[in-house]
Formats: sequence, C-alpha cells, structure tokens
Amino acid sequence: MGNGSYTDLLIIGAGPAGLMAACWAAQFQMQTRIIDQKPGRTPTGHADGLQSRSLEILDSFGIVDPILRKSVRHTEMAYWAMNESTGHIERRKRTPSLPGSSVYDQRLLNQGATEQVFLDYLHEMGVQVEYGTRARELTLSESNSETDHKVAVEVVSGKAQDGSETIHCRYLIACDGARGWTRNQLHVPVDKKLGESTWAVFDIVPITDFPDIRQSCAISSGDRGSMMTAPRENRLVRFYIHPKGDKELCNGQDTKHEPSLDELVSTADSLLKPYKLRYQHCDWYSLYSIKQQLVKQLRPHDRILLAGDAAHTHSPKAGQGMNVSMQDTYNLVWKLGAVITGAASSRVLETYESERRPVAEELLELDAQLVGAYEKDTGAAKRIETVRDQYSEFISGLGVTYGPSILVADQNAQGLVNNIKMGRRLDPFYVVNHAEGVSINLMTRLPSDGSWKLLVFAGDIRQPDLRGRLNSFAKTFCQQPLLPRLYEKRHGTRAGWLLETVLIHASPRTSVELLELPEMFHPFDETWGWDYTRVFTDEGSYSPGCRGAYDGYGIDKNTGCVVLCRPDQHVGWIGAMEDVTDLENYFSVFIDK
Amino acid sequence: MGNGSYTDLLIIGAGPAGLMAACWAAQFQMQTRIIDQKPGRTPTGHADGLQSRSLEILDSFGIVDPILRKSVRHTEMAYWAMNESTGHIERRKRTPSLPGSSVYDQRLLNQGATEQVFLDYLHEMGVQVEYGTRARELTLSESNSETDHKVAVEVVSGKAQDGSETIHCRYLIACDGARGWTRNQLHVPVDKKLGESTWAVFDIVPITDFPDIRQSCAISSGDRGSMMTAPRENRLVRFYIHPKGDKELCNGQDTKHEPSLDELVSTADSLLKPYKLRYQHCDWYSLYSIKQQLVKQLRPHDRILLAGDAAHTHSPKAGQGMNVSMQDTYNLVWKLGAVITGAASSRVLETYESERRPVAEELLELDAQLVGAYEKDTGAAKRIETVRDQYSEFISGLGVTYGPSILVADQNAQGLVNNIKMGRRLDPFYVVNHAEGVSINLMTRLPSDGSWKLLVFAGDIRQPDLRGRLNSFAKTFCQQPLLPRLYEKRHGTRAGWLLETVLIHASPRTSVELLELPEMFHPFDETWGWDYTRVFTDEGSYSPGCRGAYDGYGIDKNTGCVVLCRPDQHVGWIGAMEDVTDLENYFSVFIDK
Repeated sequence: MGNGSYTDLLIIGAGPAGLMAACWAAQFQMQTRIIDQKPGRTPTGHADGLQSRSLEILDSFGIVDPILRKSVRHTEMAYWAMNESTGHIERRKRTPSLPGSSVYDQRLLNQGATEQVFLDYLHEMGVQVEYGTRARELTLSESNSETDHKVAVEVVSGKAQDGSETIHCRYLIACDGARGWTRNQLHVPVDKKLGESTWAVFDIVPITDFPDIRQSCAISSGDRGSMMTAPRENRLVRFYIHPKGDKELCNGQDTKHEPSLDELVSTADSLLKPYKLRYQHCDWYSLYSIKQQLVKQLRPHDRILLAGDAAHTHSPKAGQGMNVSMQDTYNLVWKLGAVITGAASSRVLETYESERRPVAEELLELDAQLVGAYEKDTGAAKRIETVRDQYSEFISGLGVTYGPSILVADQNAQGLVNNIKMGRRLDPFYVVNHAEGVSINLMTRLPSDGSWKLLVFAGDIRQPDLRGRLNSFAKTFCQQPLLPRLYEKRHGTRAGWLLETVLIHASPRTSVELLELPEMFHPFDETWGWDYTRVFTDEGSYSPGCRGAYDGYGIDKNTGCVVLCRPDQHVGWIGAMEDVTDLENYFSVFIDK
Repeated sequence: MGNGSYTDLLIIGAGPAGLMAACWAAQFQMQTRIIDQKPGRTPTGHADGLQSRSLEILDSFGIVDPILRKSVRHTEMAYWAMNESTGHIERRKRTPSLPGSSVYDQRLLNQGATEQVFLDYLHEMGVQVEYGTRARELTLSESNSETDHKVAVEVVSGKAQDGSETIHCRYLIACDGARGWTRNQLHVPVDKKLGESTWAVFDIVPITDFPDIRQSCAISSGDRGSMMTAPRENRLVRFYIHPKGDKELCNGQDTKHEPSLDELVSTADSLLKPYKLRYQHCDWYSLYSIKQQLVKQLRPHDRILLAGDAAHTHSPKAGQGMNVSMQDTYNLVWKLGAVITGAASSRVLETYESERRPVAEELLELDAQLVGAYEKDTGAAKRIETVRDQYSEFISGLGVTYGPSILVADQNAQGLVNNIKMGRRLDPFYVVNHAEGVSINLMTRLPSDGSWKLLVFAGDIRQPDLRGRLNSFAKTFCQQPLLPRLYEKRHGTRAGWLLETVLIHASPRTSVELLELPEMFHPFDETWGWDYTRVFTDEGSYSPGCRGAYDGYGIDKNTGCVVLCRPDQHVGWIGAMEDVTDLENYFSVFIDK
C-alpha cells in the first residue's frame, strides 16, 4: 500500500448522490474527501428529471436558482397510443401534472448542469472533488473504538500512476454506481427483481411534425414498441426507446447488432407514425442494460454505507434514479455528521436502512408496474396513467414518510395538529417575521445547515393562559439536562448538531413586544445583538395562493403545539406545550451527553 | 500621450451605472472597455436600496437570483414622531409597501454585493473591468464620419505608472460620479436646486430596544433632528442622520469638528429617546455632503453621454440614487449599441436626453419635497408619508413613462388595449407556452438581449375572421421593405438589433396546430429545428394571483392588437392587426436601411 492519509469521511463517486453527501458533510466540522474515477463531471445527458422534493432539498442548501433558470418545467403528460385500424398513433389524453404540496414542480435538465451546481457550492465551501482517482483495494481493521479509522482504501490517481495513496477513514459512503466497486469488494448480495432489459436513450434536437414534441409523452405504438419523451433545455428532447419483451431495439436488424444512433432515431420515427422524426444535432446517446435489483444491506459493514445506484437499480421510466439517489445521502449524512463530530450515538445510523430500504422497495415496485404497463399491447397508455396517478406522491418525492424509529417518535398527533404527518417533510405554509413584517414560506426557515428546528406554535399569546403556557414551556426547557445544551451551541466534541428554537404565534405583531418573549426566542450576542429571525406570526396578509401556517397545518390557535423538524426537514416529534420532558427523552435516546 | 488603442465604447466608472452599461454593451457585437480608478469593487456600504424596476431589469439579464437570496425585503414603512409632551418618540403608523404591478418588492443589500453580481456576469461574457485605471486627459477630434474614433482619453493604470495609454473610442459614457472627471473636462454647466447638505450614514449591527429596528423607519424627533433606518443583510441596519437646517450632526459638539462614529451613534441614540442604541460591529460609515444638482446636458458632446451621479445628485432620502443611475444606462446602451453596430441612425441617441431628463427632474422634485418634509418640526411623519404615497410609482421605478419621440409613437391606443400605456414598461401578466403548456409571466419572454419584441395578440384564432387577419398580418409583414430583414437576422453591419415576433392567441391549445400558424411564429433552422418559444395562449389555468394577459392588458379577444416592446421593455408602438405599414414607418425613421 502507498502513502497513508487520514480523513473522517471518504465518499467514493461524485455523481449526484456523492455530491449531495459532500454538500451535507460540509455543514459539519469534519474532514471529507470525495473521489471519482471519471476525469471530470458528467458532460451532458444521463439523468435529467428533478422531482419536487429534490428541488426543495437543493433550495435548502441555497443552490436551486441556477437549476430553475436553466431547466424546463414539466407541467403536463401526454398519452399517445396506436389506433389499431389505422396503425397511426393518436393523442389519448393530456394530463396536467398536479402541483402537489411543493412550491416546485418537476424540472428537466441534463445531469452535468445539476452536478455543476453542486461543484460550484462545494468550491465555495473549500471542497474539491478528486477526479481521476480510482479505488483499488479495501482493507478493514477490527476495532471497538468509534473514533478509529477502520476503513482503508488504496487509491490511484491519474497524476500518480506509479504511486498510490491509502486513505484511512472512519466512514465510507459508496456512491459508485450500478457496478459499484465497493459492493463487489464486500460481496454484498442483491435481491433481483425483474430481469435485465436493454434501453436506448438519446438527447437530440428533433425535427418533427409530432405536435407534442415539447411535452412529456408516453407513446405506445402497439406491437411496434413504446417510447417516452421529455422536453429539455436548449431545444433538446430526451427519448427513451423501450423494447417490447425481448424484441430488438432496431427494426428489422439482427438482434446481435448494436444499433447506431441513426438506426435508433429511425426506430423512433417508426414508433411516431404517421409523424416524421429526423435530427441533425445529438447531445448524447446511450444503450444500456438495466437489472432491477436492490442490495440486501444498505450498510453491509458498520462503517460502510451504500447509496444511489450502488444500492438499487431500475429502469428510467419514472424519472426517479437521480432523485432517490440524492435523497439517500440527504437522509444519511446529517446522521453521519453527528456521529463523526461526537454529537450522536452511532445508533442513529441504523435508521438509514430502516428509512431508505422501504423507499427503494417502493421504487422497484413502481418501476415493475410501469415496465408492465409499457409492455401492454393495448391499453398501455391508460395503464401507465393509472400507475403514475397511484404513485404521484412517491414520484414527486413529497410523500416519503419515515416510519417510527429512534428518530421518529411513535405518536399519533391528531388533535394537536391535523395536517402534519410524523416522519414526513413539512408542507410549505406561510408565516410573517415578527420583527421585519416579511412573509415567508416556513420551509425556507429550515435550511440544511445541520440544525434541528423546534417549531413552537404557541397560539394567540395575547390570551394570558397561552402566554403563561409559552413562558412555562421556556422555563421547563431550560431546566432539562440536555435540551438547553443542544440549543446553546453546536453539540458534540467537534460541533455537530444544534437545536434552533422558532416561535410561531398567532397574534397581531403590534400586540406583542419581541424582547418581552422568553429569551430562547431572541438570544443575545454581545457583538451581533439580538437574533430577530426566530419569531414569526401567522397574522398577516399573504400573497394570493399563500396559506397561513395555523390553517395550513391544522393547528388550533387556542391550543398550540410543538413540532420538531429533523435537520432533513422531516418531522421527528410532536407534542403539546407541556410535553418538554418527552422531548428531552426523545433526544436522550441517541445523543451522547 | 501614450500608446494608442481603439475601442467602440469606453465606459468611465464601474459603479452600478457603468456596470449596467457594460452588461448591455455585451449584448452587441462591439468592443467595450470599462475603467475605474478604484482598486476594486465597492467593498460594502454605499447605496443599498434596489427598487422593483431595477430588480426587473436585473432579472431581464438573468442575474437577479443572488440578489433576491442575499437581500432583505422592504415590506413596511414605520413612521415615528416625537410626542411634544413627553419628549419621547412614538410610532404613528406602520404602512405596508404596496406591491405595485411588479413581481418584485423593494430589496436592501450593500452596493458591493450588487456590483459583484454584475462582475460575475461580465466575467462570463468575457468582459473585465479595468480597475486602478484613471482618466487623465480628454481630446476630441473633428470628424463627420460616424465610424471615426472621435474621442481620445489618456489613462494611467496602477500597473503602468510611468507609461500611459490613449484609448480612442467612438463613444464615451461617463459614469464617474458626483465629482465626475469627464464633466469637469467638458465644463458642463449644472442647474443647482437645493443647497448643500451634510449627511451621516452608517451600517452597524445595532443593539437596541427600539422595537421597529428591523423595519424601514422615518423618525422625526422634533428639534433634535430626524433619521431614517433600513434593515439590511447579516443583521446590519442602515442609519441616515439628517441634520435639521444648518444644525450640527453631532449633539453639543463644535460644528467645525468632524464627528466620529461613536459620536454619530450617540446622536442616533438621542434621536431614539426613550429607546437606547449602542453597537459593537460597524460595516461602513461615511459623512458626505450632497448638492442637489442636474447637468444642463446629458449629452454635452455628440459622442459623450453622462449618466448616474455624473448627471444628477440629490439626497439619499428616497433610496433612488443607484436605481435611477442604473436605469439611465439601461435606457441608453441598447440605443448606443445599435448606432455603433450600424443598425440605427445616431438620431436615436437624442432620445436619451428627452427620456431621462424628465426622470432626473422628477427625482429632484421628489427629493426636495422629502427634504422639506424631514425639516418639519411637527407633522414631519405625516408629510413624509404623503410625499412617499404621491411618488410611489416613481419610487418603485414602475411608473416611468417616456413621452413621444422617434422611439415612442404619439398614439392613443385606448380601445385597442386599455391597460398598456405607450412609453411605459409592460406589466407582468401570464401566458401559456403553446408547445410546452408551461405558464410564464410574459415579462420573462422579454429578456435584455438587444432584440425588439413584437407581441401579436391575435385573439381567438378559432374564429375564421381572426385567423384570416393573422394570416394577412403575416403576409403583409413579409412584404414590407424593412420589417422582414429586421426579423430574419440581427440588423446592421455588425449585428445590432433583431425584431422577434411573438404570437399570443386566445384559443385552447388543442384547437390550434402550431406548425399551421404563419411561419414567422415558428421559424425553421436546418440544425435547430422549429422555434417553439414564440407562440403562447391566454387559455390556461394560472396559479392563484396570476392574471391572464388579455384580461390584464385589457385586450378584446375578438379584436386583438399588436404591441411593440423596445429592447428595454418599454412600449414603443401599438397598432391593430392591419397597421403593418404604420409599423414599417415607425422603424424607417431611425433605421439605416
């Protein structure tokens, strides 16, 4: 082995999952390295669908704007099917995409542009992706100490072909793709679902009289096969050609022959009959075979975690791959950051498997149903639409709900709050900053900075009993052994988690003096003065279409409640104003005091 | 004189006006240089108010996002005045800012951050500001040829203290500030309005119990004086202390003494009585004296144009300085770009004076009224509010309306279109892209790229007579001598203006085939296919609060009309579908064929 070096976290693979991991890791005081054997970022093509939840997550890091500006919005899905009597395809339906509960609809953009947004952010944070660096050998040490560097990876980089470096790390995240090196090293078994299928995909500037060319389409052309299209930036359109059963991709050719781009476009042209398709400019194309599979363990070793394609592979039919992959590491790294910085027990890492495996399983089920629908000779369009409708909340990523665990309390909060679901991300409703009078979507107050947010919905605090309950809440909070320490500074030996307290009352701004509220909602710093970003009211006039928080979340202004959002915006705990000890207990289970 | 070099356009001064000029210039095929004697951009402080119209303009260059993310929104104005009997200030009113007709409200951010956004954009466009470069000598040649480099400016740069360079340019834009070098070289006379006044301004993190510290405030503290505050990014607050008459800035001190920051904060503290103010962190502060004045000519030489503070100065009371300055060059450079690239006659430059002088005059009038209001011992708060209300459309920049000229037709378009005003920028109403089904604010279809946009509101083209009128319009358009040439490619010897045609019909998308519409609305390119970005419909379901274009602009779907937007989004001409010859005549006046 070569020269040795040490890091807290090593990320193998700088695709979207690995880059998201690096973004998160940069929020914590730890050393992170990220390597990729490719010479640089994905130039173009590859995954291109960004679902609502992914955009919310990018927004939480402050990096969604360039994507919104460059991408194409997906707002409608058109279904086309063949008329058996004419042999021509016909439009069966145009369905508007339901906006769901997000401020973002789906977007389409080449993967390279999305990676660039991450790279720009990482550059600002002082993190450089080490491209052209390949992992060669994995060595695991026995140790019982949490702080030991138990994983060693020998890497070779383009610059040092002769020499090599051994990176010793405490944790390894493998985002190294469908044929992942890490998974092979560890011989991680996989569950195989559907068999292997071969796809053709190409991004061209189409020249066609097909009227829905600038919309997302599902086109089933009877026994000629089926196709999906999606509009893209710079006049591009993404085409997926789906072979039916074991049919060849390319009409009338030997099935052993690998079709050229021209042949693929010619196949697409035949699927569009009576419309014509040709092209001059191609941005990217690929033939690839997909096995639908899922690893048996997302954490095959206590220090090694698999994410993205390294954990699950499937067809591109639902536009999910990049999204679920990024959301894997978005789920993982705020936990890992806390373990590495000494803020939390490594028990929290168990929830990676328990929270993300059901998502991967649902993804594979959705994929199997969509593949089945596309396979149909007749009724495919209808069947595809039914499956998409049924899974719409999963497809947008907004429906993902994590089950009870040490990080999601096993509670029924109905009665306290009717429209917030345990384990699910918060919906975007509006509040007004008490000091500034500015109305904001509450989600923008939950940035991905490594802090938990305790949202105290204290109700109409002009009422003396509600004001009294708020004061008691604050007093009891400060008397707990753990909570005030989590609140005062980033917890852990090397600055991990923080617990931020945010008050959302329901009284007119002029009826309440901010500095008379409990100090935990306006902490003072001798240089930076009072913090004016922690008190909001629900009393305000929002723009049309914006709904206030109490109404939106279903919280009674005469009762109030307390909602804890994890650093990933998912709800971990809900309680009444009196349930402070229960909150203390929630954290005590997994936080090292 | 030193070594000689040649450029089309020289911009002196890289403040907001100069940077805006460089942004615009980068849209045209010409050489531009921009110099500034400062060593680098404004670090912090200085102008900090960005009005709605300025944000729309930044958006039209695609660069507003970082400003929206970093800045503070101004949504309310609080008025405080002294209670004569207690000697304490009291809140008289909180007035929400009216959103006006823009999608943007006012924002507050230090000038350096705004300059950085321009610099990042210019860097991408390959333009570098030459900092540390000072103009030393101006020489003018006699010439009757438009293409001659009649202006020579000798400059010295930090790097070459011994040597110097003489930059020969066709046009010079002087954005070199209130004590501008260029203006002095040319001995341009000024009209003086109000006398000189001295201001104190500081950006601190305040530590205070004043409850409206995170809002914009006008505070008049009787004979103690008055003050304005505005909340800013990073917990900062901007304070302006306004001396009353010839009173000293600093209580109880010798008026000859220049007050320290501590003394200024102490004065502010006394103006806030009974509240207390102190600080530890100061970002920037300055004492400056302002003369209210306006140059007699904005174009003192046929090749030299003055903009921003070099043309007009005034107090900071209305938060206008940076905005009007940027809007000066935003008005100017799309015209200058056309002259330099050979697309237009230099006659269009006459409209710079005719369009911007009235704005500067109104600015000075507003300023005089606000200064007067702040001077009042009693009733100042009420008077300030009255003035702000009266000028609200001017303050936001949305009300600016250019009078008739060769670039603004002298027409009354009532009857054809009821809510679009000649000479004014278009309001943001919504349309749906015909091919993609995506709804957009129509203003986002008018980017600042140097093209004119001809908006053809053809009405409900399912009706045969309206379809016929649209076809006739297209046919007549293509038969004109000039219009089709302006439409086909960027006009001029070096690619200046373009005329883009955009169709906005009022029929359901499924009832109209895009490729069956006149070809001018879907031009074809052998490589890039058809252009799908030029046909929109008003038939769509917009988000709540979004209003459709026909309804918003007051256009009858059974009649239609044609609206021409200049490259700066202001309306230059309006006509019926039959008025094509009139449109041809409009352009013929100032376009060199």
